[in-house]
Amino acid sequence: LSHIIVAVDAMGGDGGASVTVPGVLKAIQTNPDLHVMLVGQKEVLSRELAKFENVARLEIVDCDDLVAMDESPAHALRYKKNSSMRVAIDLVEQGKAQACVSSGNTGALMAISRHVLKTLPGISRPALVNPIPGVESITFMLDLGANIDCQPDQLVQFAVMGSVLASAVANVTNPRVGLLNIGSESIKGPEVVRKTAELLSEQTEINYVGYVEGNNLLNNNCDVLVCDGFSGNVALKTCEGVASTMLRLMKQAFNNGIFTKLVGFFVSKILKKLPLSFNPSKYNGATLIGLRGIVIKSHGSADDLAFASAIDVAIVEVKHDVPKTISKRLETMLVENEA
Amino acid sequence: LSHIIVAVDAMGGDGGASVTVPGVLKAIQTNPDLHVMLVGQKEVLSRELAKFENVARLEIVDCDDLVAMDESPAHALRYKKNSSMRVAIDLVEQGKAQACVSSGNTGALMAISRHVLKTLPGISRPALVNPIPGVESITFMLDLGANIDCQPDQLVQFAVMGSVLASAVANVTNPRVGLLNIGSESIKGPEVVRKTAELLSEQTEINYVGYVEGNNLLNNNCDVLVCDGFSGNVALKTCEGVASTMLRLMKQAFNNGIFTKLVGFFVSKILKKLPLSFNPSKYNGATLIGLRGIVIKSHGSADDLAFASAIDVAIVEVKHDVPKTISKRLETMLVENEA
Repeated sequence: LSHIIVAVDAMGGDGGASVTVPGVLKAIQTNPDLHVMLVGQKEVLSRELAKFENVARLEIVDCDDLVAMDESPAHALRYKKNSSMRVAIDLVEQGKAQACVSSGNTGALMAISRHVLKTLPGISRPALVNPIPGVESITFMLDLGANIDCQPDQLVQFAVMGSVLASAVANVTNPRVGLLNIGSESIKGPEVVRKTAELLSEQTEINYVGYVEGNNLLNNNCDVLVCDGFSGNVALKTCEGVASTMLRLMKQAFNNGIFTKLVGFFVSKILKKLPLSFNPSKYNGATLIGLRGIVIKSHGSADDLAFASAIDVAIVEVKHDVPKTISKRLETMLVENEA
Repeated sequence: LSHIIVAVDAMGGDGGASVTVPGVLKAIQTNPDLHVMLVGQKEVLSRELAKFENVARLEIVDCDDLVAMDESPAHALRYKKNSSMRVAIDLVEQGKAQACVSSGNTGALMAISRHVLKTLPGISRPALVNPIPGVESITFMLDLGANIDCQPDQLVQFAVMGSVLASAVANVTNPRVGLLNIGSESIKGPEVVRKTAELLSEQTEINYVGYVEGNNLLNNNCDVLVCDGFSGNVALKTCEGVASTMLRLMKQAFNNGIFTKLVGFFVSKILKKLPLSFNPSKYNGATLIGLRGIVIKSHGSADDLAFASAIDVAIVEVKHDVPKTISKRLETMLVENEA
């Protein structure tokens, strides 16, 4: 590829342009092939850009409107056709950009992406997938909240999409696929999960390794963890909540008296050397997977560095043409299943 | 009450009698009113007891059989009528003991308890409830795996049972009841959860405070957290997994070189002063709630101290007659709903 064009919804997220603009500039600096179409209110964006020197490989796409963080997806889909989010996704559909990145309203991003880009052949609904930073490796977990009720065939589609992503983004050969459940024996768990386990075992295209329980989320038991959007979202948020609570408690504990403060100083230096789990912000950038185009959701509260990471994810997915790879994999499975 | 009689399944758990016997003796030591019926193979139990002096307020109930940790609940229910687990539950049914404590196979304990003791009037199925140690308080979470699919009326029953338990065991006045969901707005989440929210809002007997997300599990948002057994089990295990992984990583980090070891020594002293979340083993003892009798499930891997905590939970529930209090509360609600 000569260069990669990413459309960025510059108005989304808790910080809006004050975060997305420096984030974009960081990404442009570290990726020599990257060109960005910065979508949003020209006046606001120009003002932010004026704070920096040597701005290159960047073009503003002016549009008036924006999708609010608490807006209903249906409302955004219907009435926000000139919003920064919608225009950024339209650019992907028109072939003017190869991917879109937004920190905006997740539900609206999902609804608009699905409407504009459509799902890939063989995919019922797109899913939200995030890399979970474990102790020794990352696990791609999906779905994380886009699909509350999932049928077995949908969960099998998640397994395929997650496998392609783990290969493309994390360079894993033959990714191990686990299924989130509440026990390790085959008789455990809901009917839907047990049926999915059967289907996954039959697929030679999927390296299915069995059930994974909540306590093994970070223990490198699988590269892809498949689950419905409800339990997936609960697990992800519980993970984040416990980790941040423990870090906060430790900080408080080490902020009490001169001696413990001294200990705390060394502790923070030692903790910085710790693996992935202690640095979740490095792993910003969830993928709306299953679409005929690449859409990356950055965390609403991401800072500029984390926003740049989300753009990096988009670039990797463009380079590996993730949507096409998923389509091919599904076709192979279809042929195999018919044979 | 003159004294409290607890039947203990002495053969259950990963450590069997080598854990339960010292655990029971610790509980007897700290609870002057406690009498224990120690149920299991007499020879094994006598051998364990011989290691201790001054054994009082304890009686062995001899039985040959035991339920294996990996035995199917149906098999245990049908063929293990002379097992330590079954006999201990029978003693409660016969009025010879006021509560039963077991570290054994959860599924079997649930099936046998339900069959022998029956559920309370107005309760469809028993639930498994555990106190989750948060930062400033504990939250009683239910169900944790006994009921995979739950209907709204069942979740309302969980709310009542959890409220009674929070009042009785943790001494909370007018316990706040939350509902596990994947968003805070009323439109979020599965149909079942939204319907339950409606029902809970209508009950004046329940202090319903709204949806709680996974990231707020430890943040004192509610005293009782209601959920289906699948997402509840996923959340609980994720919680345990992340906490233990982080503690393990820290220990490893502080075990590397003389200087960091020295820092680590002070860190471990400081961490010991930290609140509940860092000491989950202190909160051993899940309740099988909704039965016409008190059954406490100790963690399979509990040590003797943790096993003694589970017996303490049984004693508190006997003192507050938790099953009768639940029945009364349900009756009041029924009268109110009809009015």
